[in-house]
Amino acid sequence: MFRIAVDCMGFENSVSEAVKAVIKYAKKHKDLSFVLVGDENQIRPLVENKKYLNYRIVHTTNEIGMSDSVLTAYRKKDSSMYLTIELLKNNEVDTIISAGSSSAYVALTYNLIGKIHHKIKVGFMSYVPTVTKRGFWFLDVGANKEYLGEELYYLGKMANTFITSVFNYQPRLGVLNIGAEKNKGFEYHQVVYNLLENDKTVDFLGFIEPRGLIKGECDLLVSDGYSGNLVLKSLEGALKSVGKILKKNYKINPLGALFSANVIYQITKTFDYKNNAGAVVLGLNKLVLKTHGSADAKQFYSTIRLAHESLLNNLIEKITKECSTFLN
Amino acid sequence: MFRIAVDCMGFENSVSEAVKAVIKYAKKHKDLSFVLVGDENQIRPLVENKKYLNYRIVHTTNEIGMSDSVLTAYRKKDSSMYLTIELLKNNEVDTIISAGSSSAYVALTYNLIGKIHHKIKVGFMSYVPTVTKRGFWFLDVGANKEYLGEELYYLGKMANTFITSVFNYQPRLGVLNIGAEKNKGFEYHQVVYNLLENDKTVDFLGFIEPRGLIKGECDLLVSDGYSGNLVLKSLEGALKSVGKILKKNYKINPLGALFSANVIYQITKTFDYKNNAGAVVLGLNKLVLKTHGSADAKQFYSTIRLAHESLLNNLIEKITKECSTFLN
Repeated sequence: MFRIAVDCMGFENSVSEAVKAVIKYAKKHKDLSFVLVGDENQIRPLVENKKYLNYRIVHTTNEIGMSDSVLTAYRKKDSSMYLTIELLKNNEVDTIISAGSSSAYVALTYNLIGKIHHKIKVGFMSYVPTVTKRGFWFLDVGANKEYLGEELYYLGKMANTFITSVFNYQPRLGVLNIGAEKNKGFEYHQVVYNLLENDKTVDFLGFIEPRGLIKGECDLLVSDGYSGNLVLKSLEGALKSVGKILKKNYKINPLGALFSANVIYQITKTFDYKNNAGAVVLGLNKLVLKTHGSADAKQFYSTIRLAHESLLNNLIEKITKECSTFLN
Repeated sequence: MFRIAVDCMGFENSVSEAVKAVIKYAKKHKDLSFVLVGDENQIRPLVENKKYLNYRIVHTTNEIGMSDSVLTAYRKKDSSMYLTIELLKNNEVDTIISAGSSSAYVALTYNLIGKIHHKIKVGFMSYVPTVTKRGFWFLDVGANKEYLGEELYYLGKMANTFITSVFNYQPRLGVLNIGAEKNKGFEYHQVVYNLLENDKTVDFLGFIEPRGLIKGECDLLVSDGYSGNLVLKSLEGALKSVGKILKKNYKINPLGALFSANVIYQITKTFDYKNNAGAVVLGLNKLVLKTHGSADAKQFYSTIRLAHESLLNNLIEKITKECSTFLN
């Protein structure tokens, strides 16, 4: 029996989106128990008649706001996010999921849970859709602004273990850079390039320019958190803007919409972040998952699935073991 | 009479694309003379009967390849790009245009032409389309990887002068960062923020995240060349990929295409880099323009127009004067 705590507050949608996903997932999977953290008055009515649901509620009405500083987050010890992380810290659950503020989540989990090894940096890993529909995993997209070459290498190794363990394939791994040539970028680029090139356990593609990302040029992309955040937000922004043009035009021209519904569906579906598995705070010595701040039940559901699959595959154990092969 | 040299080789299309644009522009504008640099055997037949065209040809068959290193570029002293830059250096022309290798162009112009002031860095400024169709100017998108806060400030000031002089409006100026909050980013971000905030001659918006760029959140965006290059390539890549999905789907569903031609047209037109004015190497003490490596006659034409307008507005003189107000 795996135990999952879900932070049901502190994001853009209502508590019920998180709870609905838990109910739906629990109906199909009997090996899980849940701790629902949030306002009991809102959670209780949704779950009380669901006999197949193995749960308990940790009640609080306080939450960390999206604009709260990290310092404020530390002080709100009765917030739903803080209480959720404490459950993991105290071994009351095996993994946690939150849709709340990313910066608060990364800082709090880092401090309360701790890293796998002191030499690594914690990276925020996000799933990004591609036109091939395969998508790719991208990290660090915002936990740490700067990395040494060695630290990026460790990050890539951990992510590589994540993908081989949970999804059972060897990812084509790239390092983000302004050009594909070996001499491009900063000094740390050369360091991580050489380490990955000489590592026979990874399928290293070399440097990857942002131009080919949405085409699916790699399965796993490693970057410092500053560049990663810029690139992720650029891709999201561009795709959202085009989606809006499409929708606007089809309103003006409904006859076109009638015959082109399939195209809109294709594009919105391909780049639907809600259909995807959320994000992982990688490098902590426990499993910590994150979904979008605008998550709905669909996205919570896929994040619960990712949590479940990670637990079934002993992810943290495997990453810890992997780390011990190159760190000491 | 303004004199413009056009490097007709070293890019992905044929010499004739550059020459056709020159012919078309010259037909409408009598105050220009052109120096066409490239293979005379290809250029001569295209221009010899055009009586309205004021031109001469500088013959060479050598060119700098897109994959040539900067060192190779320096050595190819008879390449069309090198000869074009020398014309400007020797005051034989007032401005130059090339579609060749960006890195070679930036390095060669920097070394042969020189900077406006020793304290500034040269920035590569590119025009980026937006859904509002207004677009924005973005620099540095690849000339220098790293900047001090002061250097970014000077870059912003020069670009501000460029826009107010040539396009006659006060641009809303932003600085690229991972968040809009004042404390985000690196130390240099804080420096450039404070300088711009206290400068009453600019319309400073603060930090701009990449998410809102395609929506047209600013008219002028300043960044270090590493981040700028990543963001520009991310936007281009995402938009091109979506364009391809659209085209592919309409092939499968021609009835949809029939009724939706307008939508495809809108999107491809909005993000048609060829319809735009190319790029400027800003900070040199002469006017140096660049078009895309895949430029066709349409894009050469708009770059010639930008060159012409910059000359008519005494751009370099104005930037030099502006620089003297904050540099010494």
